[in-house]
Amino acid sequence: MGKITAVSPLAPEGFPNLPVIEGVAFSAAQAGVRYQGRTDVMLVRLIPGTTIAGVFTRSATRSAPVLDCQTKIGADSADGAAIIVNSGNSNAFTGKNGVVSTRAVTAAVADVLGLPETRVFSSSTGVIGEPLPHERITAKLAELADTLDKGAIAAAARAIMTTDTFAKGAAAEVNIGGKPVKIAGIAKGSGMIAPDMATMLVYIFTDAAASRSDLQTMLSELTDVTFNCITVDSDTSTSDTLLLAATGASGVKVDSNTIEFRDALHAVMLDLAHQVVRDGEGATKFVEIAVTGAATEADAKTHAMAIANSPLIKTAIAGEDPNWGRVVMAIGKSGAAADRDLLTIHFGDVLVAEDGWVSPSYNEAEAAAHMKGQYLRISVDLGLGQGKSTVWTCDLTHGYIDINADYRS
Amino acid sequence: MGKITAVSPLAPEGFPNLPVIEGVAFSAAQAGVRYQGRTDVMLVRLIPGTTIAGVFTRSATRSAPVLDCQTKIGADSADGAAIIVNSGNSNAFTGKNGVVSTRAVTAAVADVLGLPETRVFSSSTGVIGEPLPHERITAKLAELADTLDKGAIAAAARAIMTTDTFAKGAAAEVNIGGKPVKIAGIAKGSGMIAPDMATMLVYIFTDAAASRSDLQTMLSELTDVTFNCITVDSDTSTSDTLLLAATGASGVKVDSNTIEFRDALHAVMLDLAHQVVRDGEGATKFVEIAVTGAATEADAKTHAMAIANSPLIKTAIAGEDPNWGRVVMAIGKSGAAADRDLLTIHFGDVLVAEDGWVSPSYNEAEAAAHMKGQYLRISVDLGLGQGKSTVWTCDLTHGYIDINADYRS
Repeated sequence: MGKITAVSPLAPEGFPNLPVIEGVAFSAAQAGVRYQGRTDVMLVRLIPGTTIAGVFTRSATRSAPVLDCQTKIGADSADGAAIIVNSGNSNAFTGKNGVVSTRAVTAAVADVLGLPETRVFSSSTGVIGEPLPHERITAKLAELADTLDKGAIAAAARAIMTTDTFAKGAAAEVNIGGKPVKIAGIAKGSGMIAPDMATMLVYIFTDAAASRSDLQTMLSELTDVTFNCITVDSDTSTSDTLLLAATGASGVKVDSNTIEFRDALHAVMLDLAHQVVRDGEGATKFVEIAVTGAATEADAKTHAMAIANSPLIKTAIAGEDPNWGRVVMAIGKSGAAADRDLLTIHFGDVLVAEDGWVSPSYNEAEAAAHMKGQYLRISVDLGLGQGKSTVWTCDLTHGYIDINADYRS
Repeated sequence: MGKITAVSPLAPEGFPNLPVIEGVAFSAAQAGVRYQGRTDVMLVRLIPGTTIAGVFTRSATRSAPVLDCQTKIGADSADGAAIIVNSGNSNAFTGKNGVVSTRAVTAAVADVLGLPETRVFSSSTGVIGEPLPHERITAKLAELADTLDKGAIAAAARAIMTTDTFAKGAAAEVNIGGKPVKIAGIAKGSGMIAPDMATMLVYIFTDAAASRSDLQTMLSELTDVTFNCITVDSDTSTSDTLLLAATGASGVKVDSNTIEFRDALHAVMLDLAHQVVRDGEGATKFVEIAVTGAATEADAKTHAMAIANSPLIKTAIAGEDPNWGRVVMAIGKSGAAADRDLLTIHFGDVLVAEDGWVSPSYNEAEAAAHMKGQYLRISVDLGLGQGKSTVWTCDLTHGYIDINADYRS
């Protein structure tokens, strides 16, 4: 079971070699917002003509930067744009001070880069309820502007980490009409992960050209099958933000029906979402929960999330115990339609239960062997209809408690 | 933080000295259903004229004994009655075999005690999905019948324990029209606790006389403010059963408007519900969550349960961290109505947050001092309406993971 390790045992081998996205430049700086001896602010500059779409937390207590982004995201503009993000302080539940400090940062970025303030999007992640020392960020803006570099995306990914144990990046390249289009994205997220509409902090860039409304359509639809299908601890952040920016620098036009682009974007988003689960606080196992045969799609998601969020299932997984009885329990409590006698449950390829009871072919040693792996799959067929949903989670270990019992101290 | 201890640090000093309830007799035996070297079956005999009410889990995968009880609970009868309970095996998700073994047990009890089978109620608690070795139970029925004793309620309470670290009992005595009426109850429950309609296994006895429908009305209404307001881990059992039996032996008639009786029953139910939380797996802190000022009662309960079930809040409590930002997070994610700028939050008597931000008078040292206690209170006023709800939970510690990562092995 989990201990706090320098890097999650489920981490990729290293940060991927992300392609340059023409029209986007990055920089990072040490502003000392809360952390010392590491970068904690990233700046992104986007060329004029870039379209931007976003999805955000649906929390009723969302942060000041989220509310500010939401007022700006729906407008078209031919101007350039910028994204400024700090780690260490979420500027959430900070009252009127939160609005003041968000505007202080975005106005200063607009000033330094010569942009309208309505084109500067900001995010903050970290502790809730403490005033954001915004002057520490604005003091670094000249340095950030001077060091903008189209190759610096990895440095940007590192600057937005909080309890993350590794920086998260993903990319795809696809040919559309014989011309290459590139997508590259970065994310942070490790705990307080049960996205509702959007998730954590995620920034994705492409050199495709797309209208803002097409970009928003694709982003919203793909969020529902990627970031909205992961959970670490069932807790939803006040700061979840996902921005997608299309610079158009490739000269390739795409819309929400451009399947190749959509599939590539889906792959990048799914990769980043999985990396967030793989960096789940204390995680030692990555678990796919696949529900089929539900009465409706919504029921399938409800069952899948009930399984994925059950502390008893997550601790059994940590203990490598194929405790399928707890899966039956979670289905029973979820509130969505189920018939005990029609359930079929697999752990990996091992048929565990069918016809309302353990399968005659069930061999606990086989199921236990599956549980020893790092990548697990629990699948449930409800035998009721066509609804299906796949979600991803991690185990619940001592590491999660170690990390969260004294996060602030 | 928590370690597995022989007895919960929140346990009462000892099992209370429960009064004899005339008309009820108890016995316990070692049937070896799963456990060795301890009692694991209890039998209760109730005199003719006893009325019985019950509430049960709403799980869609509820166990065979629960389904059997539900078919029997709604009928009036002048016959005596019996309750037979085993620990070690829940007889849940055991297919047709589950029905067969439940009926085998209840039919044998009926035979031994000379009762109609429709008056024998059974419960099973323990591992899900394994066949109940019912012949081990029926083999002990003659012994159980021979040793029935009106003073043996404590032995009965011990026989139904699973991961419980202490046996749970509570009693009340009240004078109605100058005559004494007694109530005594026992419960088991420690994990998989997030009752939905009923909870765990609870058996309450009184020598009052009441109609079945009055008894049911009181039980259902009081369950909503006691057992349905506790949570250990947000997981709901397949076996939750709560039975209330009134023997009438005191000769005192009560109905659902007999305030003195109702208040006494409420006290017994609340005491037992709190004992279940105090025995929450790995618990080191007992936490009361009081929500007021919600738009509706339902919203208040939703907010209170979102706080009580948040892994981030429960781990912060384990770490004695007054992390009120996580309370704001939980309110935000709950889905019920909230206005960030109208929230007022107290930890104990310490005013933490108001007007959308930390209170000017807030002193973290005072809040931290409150967190060091074993009995904590978090109160939230939403400033929206009159809805209120109080729920109870415990912290989430290493002990919970130790217990549940290898429960079956």
